Amino acid sequence: MKIAILGFGVVGSGAYEVLEKAGFKVKKVLDVRPHPELGDVLTSDYDEILNDKEIGVVAEAIGGLEPAHTFAVKALKAGKSFVSSNKHLICTYYDELHTLAKENGVSLCYTSSAGGGIPWLYNLKRSVRCDDIYKICGIMNGTTNFILDAMISDGRDFDEVLKEAQSLGYAEANPSADIDGLDTARKTAISSSIAFDTVIKESDVSVFGMRNIKKCDIDYITKKLGKTVRYLGYGVKTDNSVSVFVEPTIIEKGALEANVNKNFNMISLFGESVGRLSFYGQGAGKYPTGNAVAQDVIDVINGASPLVYEPKDVKTDNSALKRKYYIRTSSSLASDIFRAEEKDGDTRYIITKETDVSSIHALAKEILKESPDSFFAGIE
Amino acid sequence: MKIAILGFGVVGSGAYEVLEKAGFKVKKVLDVRPHPELGDVLTSDYDEILNDKEIGVVAEAIGGLEPAHTFAVKALKAGKSFVSSNKHLICTYYDELHTLAKENGVSLCYTSSAGGGIPWLYNLKRSVRCDDIYKICGIMNGTTNFILDAMISDGRDFDEVLKEAQSLGYAEANPSADIDGLDTARKTAISSSIAFDTVIKESDVSVFGMRNIKKCDIDYITKKLGKTVRYLGYGVKTDNSVSVFVEPTIIEKGALEANVNKNFNMISLFGESVGRLSFYGQGAGKYPTGNAVAQDVIDVINGASPLVYEPKDVKTDNSALKRKYYIRTSSSLASDIFRAEEKDGDTRYIITKETDVSSIHALAKEILKESPDSFFAGIE
Repeated sequence: MKIAILGFGVVGSGAYEVLEKAGFKVKKVLDVRPHPELGDVLTSDYDEILNDKEIGVVAEAIGGLEPAHTFAVKALKAGKSFVSSNKHLICTYYDELHTLAKENGVSLCYTSSAGGGIPWLYNLKRSVRCDDIYKICGIMNGTTNFILDAMISDGRDFDEVLKEAQSLGYAEANPSADIDGLDTARKTAISSSIAFDTVIKESDVSVFGMRNIKKCDIDYITKKLGKTVRYLGYGVKTDNSVSVFVEPTIIEKGALEANVNKNFNMISLFGESVGRLSFYGQGAGKYPTGNAVAQDVIDVINGASPLVYEPKDVKTDNSALKRKYYIRTSSSLASDIFRAEEKDGDTRYIITKETDVSSIHALAKEILKESPDSFFAGIE
Repeated sequence: MKIAILGFGVVGSGAYEVLEKAGFKVKKVLDVRPHPELGDVLTSDYDEILNDKEIGVVAEAIGGLEPAHTFAVKALKAGKSFVSSNKHLICTYYDELHTLAKENGVSLCYTSSAGGGIPWLYNLKRSVRCDDIYKICGIMNGTTNFILDAMISDGRDFDEVLKEAQSLGYAEANPSADIDGLDTARKTAISSSIAFDTVIKESDVSVFGMRNIKKCDIDYITKKLGKTVRYLGYGVKTDNSVSVFVEPTIIEKGALEANVNKNFNMISLFGESVGRLSFYGQGAGKYPTGNAVAQDVIDVINGASPLVYEPKDVKTDNSALKRKYYIRTSSSLASDIFRAEEKDGDTRYIITKETDVSSIHALAKEILKESPDSFFAGIE
């Protein structure tokens, strides 16, 4: 079985190098830019790959929805297995792509779409075969972890650290997808879909961004509360539904996640029989993510397990899970969920009663209207 | 393909329950003790399993070398895949069992033989397919981690905590295999064999036990050095060889391993392309370990990847890797590797220069002759 790679950017070229070094020849690379080092391997015509009967696995590292989606559908319909590092694609077309792969008797692998080089989704898929997963949770975004770690370690403020992250290439010029939570939301949706054997959409995930965190929050959390903070995605089984959300979260200083530094990721599953399993590593980068793409390709070549896809109809309900929250705001809004409060000038530091995710996210919208720089964090 | 389980003790019954709950029927369980709940499934005659052509995978959870070894050889020769949770068996007969599995075209899986419920060895095997692993290291023994964590957290001394571990069932009545390092040495040997694609024997592993650690060591390490201590197994690639050793090791308080508490394990691989990957979870226990056995069985049923076994001839050389050491002793021995020293009565607290593992382990033997309660730890 021969391999094609779509896109020769950071991840695509990383996967190419890892595969070639391990003795797996890549037959075709699709890219519109010139790459003379690839010689005849390079093509800009997808049909050349689609019509090549030797090519059995297509690894996509283009990113974005189009043309990735069209390429995915065509590959699967042509009976080729499809590997992708593209969380936007997988999250948006989760059901369609799985159904197509199943109908065409081929594999669909996307380990690197959440957790970068960490075999998180791979192991999560393996776990659900004989365990009931009741929770997944973790640090799934390196940019936000880099920012929080630097703010906590160096006492610097958000804007300064964000600029450093941008200059190091960890954060985009437009950092919204990271700091407003969309990136983590998509990874959480994909992880929750696998964990709970259903289809969770991006729009099912309740999200607090983390761009409003300030030095005063870090000081309050680390000194007054004696804890620390990380940006976490959660999928949690409740009685008849699942809660899926992304929030800055205040955790114990001795928690494993509290010691995940720089741009590393750590994601955990909680299973009825296996207990807690955590996976730690590089959540991004040419070679780590390229390695994860290469591993998926090798799985396909070795004859990956047959795709089991019979998603259940599971309700997403973010009113079913309760925890306490920390709020820092200048809004004068009152609420009967506020349990304790300290004031520093106009700034209120509030700890809430146990509150469900939907209610607090709704309240946050009201508070942010009045005081747009307010910050919210769940408390573990 | 039907399943047989050998041994219906803690792990065997755990695997049985996990498999049955997930819809995988176990056809036969071998045990010499009565288990009326198993009905016709129970047998005490191994030939009944061996001669049953429907049974394609035999999962062994007996422990020890015999009859486990005889059963393994017979199963593989009969063309049945073999799954084992038995580190003693796998470590001792690593080469023979792999060769037999390869010759007979069947699978040999032993994920649960190191790391219990953690899919550590499974992922390590997957990693080596397209990465150069240059180091493996980690907490592989829950008993010693429980002891160290309790000593550090509660300020208690070794003997008292060991007794608690025994009463909780975490430590055996004879705790030697845990606290003298044999258990970790076997897991380190198996992990290193996979990581470096060779055969590392138990006798290749240099081992410091941890039974000599005292409250005064914990105080010195945590207060004077500002660090903490864990019991770690290491396999490290050097220029032309590998160093494989087990030692108490002084690490930074912010290291991930420093926050692995109770009887949990965390094991890491370091690959040229993927970087560091760490795996955390329950290193023992009926359901976690039973889950790992069940996962291996399901891999076989799903058609596990073909066994690649072409071990290289790699030299083990523990003189090739150097680091500093902490020594607490009443011996008056002098050595030119001692770099700094503090005295408290007769007790000397020594920090050495960078020293290779072989030399320090040889020196330790001399020192222990004079002062049998001396304690040694590597410094990361």
